[in-house]
Amino acid sequence: MVTLRNPDPLLDRIETAFDRQPFSALLGMRLVLVEPGHVVVEMAPQPQLTQQHGALHAGATSSLVDTAAGFSALTLMPEGADVMSVEFKVNLMAPGKGTLFRADARVLRAGRTITTVEARAQALQADGQWLDYASFLGTMICLRPKAA
Amino acid sequence: MVTLRNPDPLLDRIETAFDRQPFSALLGMRLVLVEPGHVVVEMAPQPQLTQQHGALHAGATSSLVDTAAGFSALTLMPEGADVMSVEFKVNLMAPGKGTLFRADARVLRAGRTITTVEARAQALQADGQWLDYASFLGTMICLRPKAA
Amino acid sequence: MVTLRNPDPLLDRIETAFDRQPFSALLGMRLVLVEPGHVVVEMAPQPQLTQQHGALHAGATSSLVDTAAGFSALTLMPEGADVMSVEFKVNLMAPGKGTLFRADARVLRAGRTITTVEARAQALQADGQWLDYASFLGTMICLRPKAA
Amino acid sequence: MVTLRNPDPLLDRIETAFDRQPFSALLGMRLVLVEPGHVVVEMAPQPQLTQQHGALHAGATSSLVDTAAGFSALTLMPEGADVMSVEFKVNLMAPGKGTLFRADARVLRAGRTITTVEARAQALQADGQWLDYASFLGTMICLRPKAA
Repeated sequence: MVTLRNPDPLLDRIETAFDRQPFSALLGMRLVLVEPGHVVVEMAPQPQLTQQHGALHAGATSSLVDTAAGFSALTLMPEGADVMSVEFKVNLMAPGKGTLFRADARVLRAGRTITTVEARAQALQADGQWLDYASFLGTMICLRPKAA
Repeated sequence: MVTLRNPDPLLDRIETAFDRQPFSALLGMRLVLVEPGHVVVEMAPQPQLTQQHGALHAGATSSLVDTAAGFSALTLMPEGADVMSVEFKVNLMAPGKGTLFRADARVLRAGRTITTVEARAQALQADGQWLDYASFLGTMICLRPKAA
Repeated sequence: MVTLRNPDPLLDRIETAFDRQPFSALLGMRLVLVEPGHVVVEMAPQPQLTQQHGALHAGATSSLVDTAAGFSALTLMPEGADVMSVEFKVNLMAPGKGTLFRADARVLRAGRTITTVEARAQALQADGQWLDYASFLGTMICLRPKAA
Repeated sequence: MVTLRNPDPLLDRIETAFDRQPFSALLGMRLVLVEPGHVVVEMAPQPQLTQQHGALHAGATSSLVDTAAGFSALTLMPEGADVMSVEFKVNLMAPGKGTLFRADARVLRAGRTITTVEARAQALQADGQWLDYASFLGTMICLRPKAA
């Protein structure tokens, strides 16, 4: 028997939605953690994701954090609802260089319509430390199923 | 004879920098206009750039406008200088759906170190109109050549 | 006889809402233009609005542009509705110095719930020119009357 | 004997700069904590700081968080340097209502020129809890003394 309090249905729901995003696949993103209000997405470095200096392109970093942010908001929305980015801001604090990238997104406040999310993009350094290299603050909207 | 006031050297400089960005190529971006303080970049719709509803992923839109914005700032920077995004904000005003996308970026103010840029992302509609579907406001920094 | 198409009811509605904001009065703001989707608010320079260099404090500039932006969104909302700022970003492009300040706000897109607004803060210079010294991009939400 | 590691010179430096801002005084702001990279500023609720619903005006909240953010950046800048806001974004997550307001600002990354800061605005509730009602992400610039 499966209940709504079981974490698996949440993971299933988020994974299903994640797998329907061709763009996340193009960039090689991978869901690595799904909790209520908290999602982590990883992305491996690839030459095709870089800008002119060999660092991750700001657009690739933005895509990574926006993806984690959107799904973190979706975890707190009712089943059947969908999420869209209303707007976001990204501060690029250091070049996106490392052996692995991840975005860690947490919901700050989930309203009925509007959800505010913050996220950090991190790059794994040679010394094994994760460097916070970008910061994200954004607004997501809940699109409810028409019949609801 | 080529002089610095000739528009061609500017176009050459921007095209050369643009062609060194693998990520722009991955997304299929194309420079279509380069003027001092003004750059337009196009991108064709492709299934791999979409999110779960078939619209352009917010990350792809952000990448497009950030790219146009960065190069518009670069047009006003001295030769040999490079540009990096300090931060930007994108408002996604409508779903990114159309037969062609473009970002139109204009420098609002170019300082010695900091340049402010605004940009619009537009989607070509079936009726031949360009719909403004996203708006961008961001900050670029000028990285001067070390020897200068 | 007054009809809804008459511009006066709009002006009355916005002025009434504006006059209910004690903070705008504290800063000396004054409505100078109200059109559908477009509002201009003025503010005189005063020593108490400055920061440590004698320029307008970034908070005073933000207050000015957010006020103009909120009311520009309200012009396109149904009667009885109210407006709140969801979020905004301000880029401060030059010191806020001049003999008069104004914010010029225009709605970029008005949805049923969410309205996107851009605005410019301008400072009147000694030569009679208005200098764009700050740029604003923000999101407003429509709060509908409960009974509607 | 006073050393640079002594917290008092830092506090003195920040308080001196804070006291030179007439706008902070107009709004009733008060420095309550100064540490390297971390500043808290308080503000009491006053009718003149409100908008039409009796909540703190978004501009007053923005002024509060921007002030805390700017001074948190200044704590990590060299003596004699000054700080200016390049840009910031504020998300207003709940109405600004409470018996006391404060902004808690922390530097995320301090570079030679550019410092990234995040801050939270909090409102003291009747139950004694601080509600995070607004979130801030911004960029500060270091203005070095001319002779340095």
